[in-house]
Formats: sequence, structure tokens, C-alpha cells
Amino acid sequence: MKIPVGILGATGMVGQHFIKFLIDHPWFEVTWVGASDRSAGKLYKDATSWRLDGVTPANIANLTVDECKPSPTAPKLMFSATDASVATEIERAFATAGHVVVSNSRNHRMDADVPLLVPEVNADHLGLLPLQRKNRGWSGVIATNPNCSTVALTMALGPLKQFGITRVIVTTMQAVSGAGYPGVASMDILGNVVPYIGGEEEKMQQETQKILGDFTGGEVKFLDAKVSASCNRVPSVDGHLVSVSVELSQKPSRDEILAAIHSYQGEPQKKNLPSAPKVPVQYMDAPDRPQPRRDAERENGMACFVGRLRECPVLDWKFTCLAHNTIRGAAGAAVLNAELMKVEGLLD
Amino acid sequence: MKIPVGILGATGMVGQHFIKFLIDHPWFEVTWVGASDRSAGKLYKDATSWRLDGVTPANIANLTVDECKPSPTAPKLMFSATDASVATEIERAFATAGHVVVSNSRNHRMDADVPLLVPEVNADHLGLLPLQRKNRGWSGVIATNPNCSTVALTMALGPLKQFGITRVIVTTMQAVSGAGYPGVASMDILGNVVPYIGGEEEKMQQETQKILGDFTGGEVKFLDAKVSASCNRVPSVDGHLVSVSVELSQKPSRDEILAAIHSYQGEPQKKNLPSAPKVPVQYMDAPDRPQPRRDAERENGMACFVGRLRECPVLDWKFTCLAHNTIRGAAGAAVLNAELMKVEGLLD
Amino acid sequence: MKIPVGILGATGMVGQHFIKFLIDHPWFEVTWVGASDRSAGKLYKDATSWRLDGVTPANIANLTVDECKPSPTAPKLMFSATDASVATEIERAFATAGHVVVSNSRNHRMDADVPLLVPEVNADHLGLLPLQRKNRGWSGVIATNPNCSTVALTMALGPLKQFGITRVIVTTMQAVSGAGYPGVASMDILGNVVPYIGGEEEKMQQETQKILGDFTGGEVKFLDAKVSASCNRVPSVDGHLVSVSVELSQKPSRDEILAAIHSYQGEPQKKNLPSAPKVPVQYMDAPDRPQPRRDAERENGMACFVGRLRECPVLDWKFTCLAHNTIRGAAGAAVLNAELMKVEGLLD
Amino acid sequence: MKIPVGILGATGMVGQHFIKFLIDHPWFEVTWVGASDRSAGKLYKDATSWRLDGVTPANIANLTVDECKPSPTAPKLMFSATDASVATEIERAFATAGHVVVSNSRNHRMDADVPLLVPEVNADHLGLLPLQRKNRGWSGVIATNPNCSTVALTMALGPLKQFGITRVIVTTMQAVSGAGYPGVASMDILGNVVPYIGGEEEKMQQETQKILGDFTGGEVKFLDAKVSASCNRVPSVDGHLVSVSVELSQKPSRDEILAAIHSYQGEPQKKNLPSAPKVPVQYMDAPDRPQPRRDAERENGMACFVGRLRECPVLDWKFTCLAHNTIRGAAGAAVLNAELMKVEGLLD
Repeated sequence: MKIPVGILGATGMVGQHFIKFLIDHPWFEVTWVGASDRSAGKLYKDATSWRLDGVTPANIANLTVDECKPSPTAPKLMFSATDASVATEIERAFATAGHVVVSNSRNHRMDADVPLLVPEVNADHLGLLPLQRKNRGWSGVIATNPNCSTVALTMALGPLKQFGITRVIVTTMQAVSGAGYPGVASMDILGNVVPYIGGEEEKMQQETQKILGDFTGGEVKFLDAKVSASCNRVPSVDGHLVSVSVELSQKPSRDEILAAIHSYQGEPQKKNLPSAPKVPVQYMDAPDRPQPRRDAERENGMACFVGRLRECPVLDWKFTCLAHNTIRGAAGAAVLNAELMKVEGLLD
Repeated sequence: MKIPVGILGATGMVGQHFIKFLIDHPWFEVTWVGASDRSAGKLYKDATSWRLDGVTPANIANLTVDECKPSPTAPKLMFSATDASVATEIERAFATAGHVVVSNSRNHRMDADVPLLVPEVNADHLGLLPLQRKNRGWSGVIATNPNCSTVALTMALGPLKQFGITRVIVTTMQAVSGAGYPGVASMDILGNVVPYIGGEEEKMQQETQKILGDFTGGEVKFLDAKVSASCNRVPSVDGHLVSVSVELSQKPSRDEILAAIHSYQGEPQKKNLPSAPKVPVQYMDAPDRPQPRRDAERENGMACFVGRLRECPVLDWKFTCLAHNTIRGAAGAAVLNAELMKVEGLLD
Repeated sequence: MKIPVGILGATGMVGQHFIKFLIDHPWFEVTWVGASDRSAGKLYKDATSWRLDGVTPANIANLTVDECKPSPTAPKLMFSATDASVATEIERAFATAGHVVVSNSRNHRMDADVPLLVPEVNADHLGLLPLQRKNRGWSGVIATNPNCSTVALTMALGPLKQFGITRVIVTTMQAVSGAGYPGVASMDILGNVVPYIGGEEEKMQQETQKILGDFTGGEVKFLDAKVSASCNRVPSVDGHLVSVSVELSQKPSRDEILAAIHSYQGEPQKKNLPSAPKVPVQYMDAPDRPQPRRDAERENGMACFVGRLRECPVLDWKFTCLAHNTIRGAAGAAVLNAELMKVEGLLD
Repeated sequence: MKIPVGILGATGMVGQHFIKFLIDHPWFEVTWVGASDRSAGKLYKDATSWRLDGVTPANIANLTVDECKPSPTAPKLMFSATDASVATEIERAFATAGHVVVSNSRNHRMDADVPLLVPEVNADHLGLLPLQRKNRGWSGVIATNPNCSTVALTMALGPLKQFGITRVIVTTMQAVSGAGYPGVASMDILGNVVPYIGGEEEKMQQETQKILGDFTGGEVKFLDAKVSASCNRVPSVDGHLVSVSVELSQKPSRDEILAAIHSYQGEPQKKNLPSAPKVPVQYMDAPDRPQPRRDAERENGMACFVGRLRECPVLDWKFTCLAHNTIRGAAGAAVLNAELMKVEGLLD
């Protein structure tokens, strides 16, 4: 008997990624799909223009779309793929009604009592949830995952946190799938680079400080590091590549950094969660890797790939990292969060 | 009466760029083309697979290719597009024989007595030439232009030099034309990013320090700034985009920086050189510019475009800059160098 | 003194192409720009997101946008770049009010009394205009140019018409700029081909029969040839490539076909119209040409390039042809029509 | 106990595709890899630049590369991915020595006594093998699969053969992976289409007639249909798309054609071969499908997708079809051939 789950915003691009990622999931089964009034009452296949590769999964095609409102038929566990323009209200309504909302939306990420999770890095931030329930008087909760580009960076920084991260400068090269559908116009990106993604740099800078922060029991104390991001859209389909320079107060050697990466294991690995990559941060020795098209989909799109570790003439070290933006950076991230919450007893 | 010029390595991709750039040049006329033994004796059109847009220019097509050896028919002014594997010898032979070699090859760029020119930035480095002649006992000289990615960076840093550049971190997104032909395999770059270009980061770091250095009368004193580069190949055709963070000791305001950019003029502008852009560094206010496909070819591909100037949480300021890699970063750069040398009386 | 012209639908993508194409035109000067109510009253630069390369031309930026309604200030010659959803009404209103409407919109193309012009091919179809005036009781007129993919095909078929065209099968590979802005989503076309463009095949089939038809003095008698089109969108930016197989009743030899192409001249060439390519249909001998990125922009984007003429095992001959879709297939086509109309005294 | 297999030309791009496709194959296990003298003696991982997504499969990485010469250690079943320049000799040597050579190379495809197989379409052509053995005095045999673009076409035509195929005109849009590595230069294909692939049109025309021909017991009588192909390279990574017009002597209705496609089953399906797609030719109703990036990899890359069936104004019907060029068009095709040969007892 699998755990029934619902998808808020199921007809959109991120909703479709949730559906695709959850096909054949060993624990969860999508039994409920919610969308806007316009879609409610229709069969999923009729309400949705399937934009991902292949065609609408057969087991979802004939579900009837519900409104995004709490109801007796809605499962307790809700993945939220709702648009930022409506996510605040919808997620709050479901949390109030007792649902566990595991959200990919940005709206509540930076709330002080909402965990912003990368389970390998900060599983203990789940400790915010009892506080959140108390603060808000909710019977349910909201937990979130970061922005797609933040995931690649924070997973790569995870093993380095022990060395004292003090300054980080990153430049991203982000795939078009990160902008949803229709998203980036082909006239804007074919044979081109667009050196701007609205709001992305601020999100990346702030979220990184929260994710790498320490949970004190009562709050998350943000990492006291300066972070600077420059975000670019490039003509790749999937996979956000990030060029990173980092200053580390403890001045580790190259071997110490590599050892930290190679041995890095988090709660998802220790608890053997179904969507957890066996090796969450994988170092590639080839001088020209990782690459989005060749590497992002490996390990079911759930690992972070790191390469080109070398000394930085300005800060201490520089390297390149990569994660699949719509999987590890969105749907897969939320599902891994829910898996962690399940083994922690937070879905009961 | 135009000045006759020769192209060393005329059949290769860079050679073709020289030929294309010099069509209708008001001062120079290509009358001599040199290539390897294999091509020598053939008509240019028969020796060359024309790889640029359109077809082989009619006035060059029927020139007979010569060997890359000094000869009575070779013009005094030689543009060198020779491959690095042979450039050292060939350029030295021509300089020894009294030719003015204006080279795009990397071989002599870092020689202490060879000017590495971005004429807007360091026209006074031409002062190395008498020293070079004396050192080497040559009747000719060699002058060089930088690596294609360095040009975009140093032109953008030119107006900032007055503020005391102390640290620079850059990430490049470079077009495939920078790798020549066949260059980057389509299997490597379609829908992908390759986070590595052999030797490029070192070149960019060192050349920047030389170009922005001061000519003391006897030598070029390198800029005492730390420079860190991360170089990536992206699927654009022309135009290298660079994401830059910079530390400036004098802590100028945003307005002071913009004023410095807007008012920036160098020798090419003051002397009204034919290939000089009227405004060498152009600031774009739109939040998502410059972009390679939309901006690189403007101003005949000879300007540097800058945008997105904003505070950097780690260093002082960050911005994006762009230059056309095969024009301003190669053939056009060398031609502008030769134009400067002409008005300075160095071609006589 | 240039002839003042207006652009209907000036803020859209096609309108922008008109503006760009008319910069420095020797006969015409854009003095009036019309758009929707929403834009009317604003400066052009404020009403428009400039989507083409570079930035809004300076001489147009400060024109005030008018509504698309006849008015005393509107010039007699109007280029129409209006959207198909409103073009019927707007163009009719201007023609009724005495304007010469030279339209790129599809709405009136197939009207029996409206010339659908490719001036090299069917300049005599202008003979429909007196009939149109009489039929409709207009003091003005409407003349049209074909769909962008039709232009490439009909220019290439022009020299072959004399051999008796009886059957034509074509497959197109069309650039994304043909779909306007935002047009094709990058998620749909990066590393992909979309084998469908709504309505395109029907337009190409019908328009070709009209353009290649004969004007009898009273009507255009459509070409009695069967035409079959399959239209595909590919990830190129500009230039529609067409693969053609054709049956010719007179069974010309390869040399006869090539001679017909080489010697092909139309009214634009004979009358030396400013936008006319000297050689309207250019045969390329290289086995792998024409190519969109390398050839479409040659000859100011106004020529049709043909290559790969070889026997077809099913029909008689097959070849590849190319034209620039937003220039020769849209704005440039309409401007050439207006130039022809001027020398024919139809703008007086 | 799996059947051991060898790969001739294992270090090249096609060889890598064989290795990737055979990971986890239920019947076959790669135990032997052969390549040129230069690679022989090295470990596979050291002799090979792995060009496919991800990294060299672990179980192959440490195999020692052998020369492409028959030897006691070489398995009986050999997949040939050898280059055309050497395939004739190598394959002949192995067949002479008793090996079953299942080849992707073009060299023997058109030999009268060599089966050119698309198992769904012409499994009975295996009847040529006894004749081949006798003709050539070999103890082994050679069987081949078609050129990658031919596979898509012949699978789509398979269900239509019963209606009497008399004329076929096709235009292909082929992915860059079809050209191997480095294959197509990025400068040639980014934002471009190349309307020429050397030798491809001839192969497609001839191979189609052989594959769709009838085995009479003594020979394959070629299909008496005229076939015309125009082949283009487009900037997609995997999946060859083909635009097809076909004349059918029996003039079936649309419903009859669709019924033929839907019910189409061949020997691979009937015998439930491990690499056989359950539905070999899949019709897609969406007006804009199939598409290379969205569909080619479905069904493990082994199905042919068809869409857009509509009347052709010149011949009878037109449609679009797609197959994965490196899987169904190369490595997967050969493996399916070998699976068929196994169940037919031809590997014993």
C-alpha cells in the first residue's frame, strides 16, 4: 500500500515534472491532482498540454483535476508546484487544514520558521517544523526546497562547510527548462546567452546562507559568509552549471577537499531513501567535466557533479558544479524532502 | 594608393577573418597570402575551404599562395594568423628580414619586449618596439594582440584602471568560433556547456596583468592585481561574454564608474583610426544586455559592450561584458594595431 | 526629398523588421508608426520592446505612435505589418481612405483582385490593381507579398516556369524568426525539429499556384500544377531552407535549367530597383550549399540561393533553395513591391 | 550463462553505442573488444575517449583491447562497428574463420547474398545466409542492418507494403550523432542546416528497395518502386526525422493505413525478442509529433514513430516518421538482428 499524494499545480511544467518523477515511486502514488478553476473538473489529459518528453503517463491521464482547495478527498501529503502568484495562499490553506505541504515554490522559503532543505546538507533544519506549527497554529506544515540553481551550489559546498566558508563568488550557466513553459523564447536564446534571470541572483545568495546555516534548536542561524551570484541563461535544455570560487578559513589542501567530497554522506544516504543518490556529490577527474548534457541525467538526475578543482588566484579554490535543475533542483528535491520526512515520522 | 599587406597563415580560419575584415579597408590592401608548403603555388581559392559566411572574396580568390618565408615580393606589413606550432619561427624570420609583423598568434605575447596591445588601453606599450629592435638585432618588429577572451575583459577594465584594480574574478562564456575550424565538435556543444578551454585561463590571467600594466620607458610593469578566470565554451557562434567581479581600491561610486565608461576614449578614437569604434566601451542600460547574438556584431564587431553594473557582495562591483571574438578579439584587433602603428610612423 | 511612409503594426516583430530594413532607404523614409490603442500616444521607444539585433534605430525611437486609423497625418504609402486578427479591417480602412497599402499580412493574399507579388516572377500581376479599385470602389489599393516560405520556393521556380511545371513536392526547414516573438518556445526547438507549422502548408501550396499563374488581363489564372508541402521548424535563427522535387513537362537538361537560373532577370533588375538583388536567383556549386546561417544574409537578404540540382528518381529534378524569411520573405519583399509600384507610377 | 560477444571497432563512437546498449542485456555479454593496432594491448578505458553521456561502463573499462583479427579467444558472435575503410577485410576474415558477424558497417549491405535486415520488415531475408555460406565457402556469415536514416523510413513503410508502394519521395532532417565523433563541426551546424550528407541519399534509395524486396528462396527481388531522398543535417543530437510522400497502387483510405500501422507486428514482436519494442511503429495523433528530442529515446530508442498522416496533393499520402539513429539506426538494430538470429538457431 503506497502513500497517496497530491500535486498542487499539477498541470504546469513543474507539476508535470512531479508526475514524471513519481512514476514507479516505491512509497508514493499520485492519486490527486489540483490546478486552477479553469482546469478543475476536467480529466488531467484534457486539462494539460504535456510538455515533457514522451506523452502523459497513462496512470495519471484519467485522474480528474480538482481545485487547489483542501477537501476530504485530498491526501495528507501534498507536493506544491503552484505558481508564485498564488502559492502563498494555497499552501497556507492546506497547511492550516492539516496537510503536509512539501513545496517547490519560492514563497515560504525564507520564512524564519520554514525549513529550506537540501537533505544531505541540513536535514536537521526539519527541527523548525514544531516551531512552525506552534507559531502559526497549523495542524499541518510547510517544508521547502531551494531554487534550482541554489541546489547545485549548496550540495557542492556541503562537504566544504567544515573548512569554514567565508566568501563565495559564482557565475551560473542555466538551462532553459528552468524557466518553465513557454519560458525562454527561442529568439532570445538560440546561439546566444542572456546574462540575466530576474530575481535569481538574490535568491541564490540568500538561500545559500540559510541552507548552510546552523539550526540552534530555536532558529536557523545563517552562514556568516558573503555570497555573490551572477546568473546567465544558456542554450542547454537541462542542467544548471555553476562556476564557483570559494574562500575557506581553514585553508584545506586539495587532497583534504577531495577527501571531504568523496566521503560526503548525508541523512538520505544513511537512511537509504529511495530517491537518494548513493554518492551525493560526485567528483569527476576529466578536465572538461561535468557537462550538462552528458552528466545532469546520471544518477536519476539526483546527484551533484563537481569537477575542475584548482587554486583560485583571488579566493582559495575554484571548481565547477552541476545539478539537474528540474529533478534535483525541483521535483526530485521535494520528493527527497518528503522521503526524509517520512522516515522521521513527520508524515504520520 | 593603399598600403600592401600580407597574411601569414592566410588559408586558415583566422587568416580568412583577416581577409574578410580587410575587404574595402581604406588604408590596407591584401596583395600577398602565405600558407604552408602544401598550399604554396596554388590559387587562394583552390588552397582554401572558405569557412566564413558567404563565399571567398573575389579579389583574393585568384592570388597565388606563397610560402611563409620572407621574399622580395612580400609586403613590409605582415599580419600573422599562423598556427602556434609554427608562429615562433615564422614571425621571427619575417621580423629579422625587416617586416612589421602584427600578430594574432600567442607565441610572442608574453615576451618582455613585445607589446601586447589593446590600443584604447595601452597604446604607449608601443614604446617597447625600439627596445625590441635593439635587443634582438632585428630590422623589423613584432607586435601582438591578446587572446580573444582577454580583449573583452581588458577593454571593460580600461576605464576602471584609474580606480585601482586589485582583484578580479571572471567567468567566461565563449563562442565556438573561438576554436577555429573544425574546432569544437557539435556532439560536444549542442545543448551543452564545456567548462574547460585548454590554456585559456592562464592566458587570460597573465595577459590582463601585462595589458593593464604601465610602460616605464624601459619595460612594462605588470598590474599588481590578482586575476582569476574560469573559461567555458557555450553554444553561441560569435561573441565572448564575460561575467566579472572586481575590487577597486579607490571605492568609486556607481556614477563614477559609469562616467568613466561613458567618457572613455583612447588613441584609436583620438586619432580617428578607420577601424576604431567611436565609443569603444558602450554601456547598455537594459537589464539583460549585452548578449552575444544581438550585440557582438554591432559597431563592426569592434566595440566592447558592458552591462549589469551592480554591487558585488564579495568584491566591490560586478558586471557583464562582451566583445566579438574573431573581430575585436582577433583579426580586427590586429588591424587596429597596425592602424595605430601607421599613424605613429612605425610602418615607414 | 524622400517619400514618407507609415508602418501599420510598427511595434511588433514584423514592424521592427520594416523599420530596420528602411533605415537609409534611398526613396522611402518612415515618418509615421501605427499600433494598437494601447501603444498609441507613446513614443515608439517606450511602446516597443526592440527584439532585433542591436537597439531601436535613433531616428524612429522618438516618433509618436498613432492608432492604426486613417488620418490626415498618415502618409499615402503604408506598409502593413498588422496581425492577421486585425489586418482585414485595418487594411481595408486605409485602402478605402486612399492609401496604397503594401501588406505582409496574409489576409488579402488570396483575394482574386489582390496581387500576390514576387516582382521578379509576376510583376504583371500589378495589372489587378485597376480591377481591384473598380471592384471595391476604393481610391487606394492593397498589394501583398507571399508567406515567407513561399518566397524561397517561387523565386527558385521562377526560372523553371518556362519548362512547364506540373508537379512539385517540397519539405521546408524553417527558422524560428518566422514565428515572431515570443514565437517558438526554446523548450520546443532546442536540439529538436517540430514537424508542423499551423496553416503553413496550405498557404505554401495555394500561394505558389497564384504567384506562378498568368495574368490574362482580367484575372490571374492559377498555375495548373500540383504542389505538396511539408513544413518543419528547425533550430536556425534566420533563413528558410526548402528541399524541392519538381516535374517539368518539357524535360529540360541540367544545362538548360542552370542556364535559365543564371540568366534570370525580372522587373526589379531591369528597372534597377534599390532593394533588388543584382542576381535574384543565385546558383551555388558547392555540394553542401546554400545554408541558412552562411547564405541567408548575403545580398542584403534579398536573393534566393539554389544548390544541389540533381535528377530526382521520382519526379524530374530536385534541388535545395533558401531565402531570408524576415527580409526577402517579409519586410524586404513588401519594400521591393513598393519600389516596383513607384516606378510603375502606382504611388502617384 | 550469457552468450559472450565481441565488438569489432569497440573504441569508436558506434562501438561505444554497442557497449552502452548491451549493458544489462539478458542474453549477450560483451567479453571481447577489438580495435586498431594502436589500441590493442591497452585497457579499454585507456584506449578510448568515451564520448557518450556519462562515463565508460565499469564492466568494460578493464577489458584488454584485442586486434581485430580472428583468435581463439574471440567469441563466435561479433558485432561489427568497424570503419568502412577496413570493414570489408575484417568482416570477411571473421566470417571465414567461422564467426557470425552482425555488422553495422555499410560495406556488405548491398551484396546480393548478404541480408540487410529490419527484422520487423524482412526477417525472411535471413534465408540468404545458407546461400551466402555456400557462395563464399565460409563457415561463418555476415548479416547487416541498414543506414540509420533508412531504418526510420523502412519501418514506417513496412505496414504500407501491402498496399503496393510505387513511388516515395523523402526529405530527411538528421541528427549530428549520425556523423560520429568529431563528426559535424559546431561551426557548420549551430543555428544552421547543412543540405548534404555524402553518399546518404544513394544509400537510402538503394537500401530501401532491398529491404522492402521479396525473398524468393534464391535471392531478394528488389521492390519495384522509385525512391528519391534528400538528406539534411540539422542541429539535433539524436533522432532522424523523415518527411515522406508515398504513392500506393491500391489507394487505401486513411483508416486502412492507420489500421495497418496499429496492427503491425513482426518477428521480433511475435518471438518477444528482448530488444523488440512492443509496438514497433507507433502512430502519434498530436499534430506536431513525432519530434526528435521528445520521442526518439522512448521505447529504449527501438520504435519508429509516425505522425501527420495526410493526403499528398502530388502522390497519395504524406507523413512524418522518426527513429533513434544510433540505437534503432545502428547498435540496437544490430543487436535485434542478433536476437532474431539466436531464436532462429543461427548462432549455434
